[in-house]
Amino acid sequence: MRNIKLTIEYDGSRYNGWQKLGDTDNTIQSKIEKVLSLMASRSIEIIGSGRTDAGVHARNQIANFKSTIKLSNQEIRDYLNHYLPNDIMIKKVEEVDERFHARYNAKSKKYLYRIWNGEIPTVFERKYTYDIPNKVDIEAMKKAAQYFIGEHDFKAFSSVKSKKKSTIKELYSIDIKRVGSEIQILFHGEGFLYNMVRIIVGTLIEVGEGKRRPEDMKKIMEDKIRQNAGVTAPAQGLILTEVNY
Amino acid sequence: MRNIKLTIEYDGSRYNGWQKLGDTDNTIQSKIEKVLSLMASRSIEIIGSGRTDAGVHARNQIANFKSTIKLSNQEIRDYLNHYLPNDIMIKKVEEVDERFHARYNAKSKKYLYRIWNGEIPTVFERKYTYDIPNKVDIEAMKKAAQYFIGEHDFKAFSSVKSKKKSTIKELYSIDIKRVGSEIQILFHGEGFLYNMVRIIVGTLIEVGEGKRRPEDMKKIMEDKIRQNAGVTAPAQGLILTEVNY
Repeated sequence: MRNIKLTIEYDGSRYNGWQKLGDTDNTIQSKIEKVLSLMASRSIEIIGSGRTDAGVHARNQIANFKSTIKLSNQEIRDYLNHYLPNDIMIKKVEEVDERFHARYNAKSKKYLYRIWNGEIPTVFERKYTYDIPNKVDIEAMKKAAQYFIGEHDFKAFSSVKSKKKSTIKELYSIDIKRVGSEIQILFHGEGFLYNMVRIIVGTLIEVGEGKRRPEDMKKIMEDKIRQNAGVTAPAQGLILTEVNY
Repeated sequence: MRNIKLTIEYDGSRYNGWQKLGDTDNTIQSKIEKVLSLMASRSIEIIGSGRTDAGVHARNQIANFKSTIKLSNQEIRDYLNHYLPNDIMIKKVEEVDERFHARYNAKSKKYLYRIWNGEIPTVFERKYTYDIPNKVDIEAMKKAAQYFIGEHDFKAFSSVKSKKKSTIKELYSIDIKRVGSEIQILFHGEGFLYNMVRIIVGTLIEVGEGKRRPEDMKKIMEDKIRQNAGVTAPAQGLILTEVNY
């Protein structure tokens, strides 16, 4: 049995996310599984490094699957890219150790959130950025971001569904920089709760707009009440850029 | 009567070009005219700096129209952007001299052609680049481009419809550079014939692929036969970046 690792890029605009519970096949996972199953003439399930929400993009999502298929890695890649829609792209196909598991073995992840902060948005980035026309205070956002670094209970910054699951995560860094009309917020952490990046971004934007003070972050985190944090920033600005093993 | 100049950005993917003769309102010009006419409560026609083909994009297309409308420039811009689809954006509205004519007064234009020349295309640029996976010889393309600089009869490099119209144009520069996985070809000229940039690009690509020699450009130009030049490169890679007055 071969264990095959996929590196995947996708424009999430049209999809209901990487994987959705329930009745829908309009997910990136199911699009890939459909083509793989066609290729192998039997049903194949893939394991993703984690879910991405509806509308969220990925530059390097990782998944793996097991199969006895005889095609070369290059042939698998070409077959997939031939049959997949053109907003999903298999960048790499590699054979890995049989114990490799895309979700359990993921050590850390990077997410990038892109904000368009020019007077006029650009049509070319409209699906990949969140548009904020008013000037925001980047320095205040940077100060606020410092409160999230390290190991914390991020309960206030997640839409947790299960009460059993731990909401403690370690965040290694949040880098905020202005690139032309864009504000880029790069997250690096061991893992992320459901909606965590988007809620932190939504809260940081409110700091940038002067609606909250950087030091308010501490109390929000301690109180662990979702309603005390900011709004969930839109999915379209978010992109999973890296999964490390 | 006010004379109003518009600076327009658009993603041309969904449209039949800036303007089309005949029965269609799926053009960028007609989308803008519809909203302007709604705003002014009377039919308004706009004059573009020139047409762009179906699927071609623009970062700074210029148009003008005359109207007695009492709204401020800012109000006109906001009204247009509110009602236009989100792949058409009015970047600037200015009041100009009554003699200003977006087409007749255009002194020069710049077009950018973007080629994706990586092993794997990126989904995020799929609508704005032409994908060539094989390695191309940029130096040969640069040599070939030199034959087009200056005043020439570009008949072989255009899909001319009228026989009366002159096919002599002056090209000021063609800059070719590699930016990461991308090859960018920037054209600056006094004006361009129908399909001229796309046919020159198609021919330059064939030089880059070793199918033609740079010095062949001279004879193709002299013979003035469209069939002797290369294929017309796809519209999606082309973007009108600047119109100078």
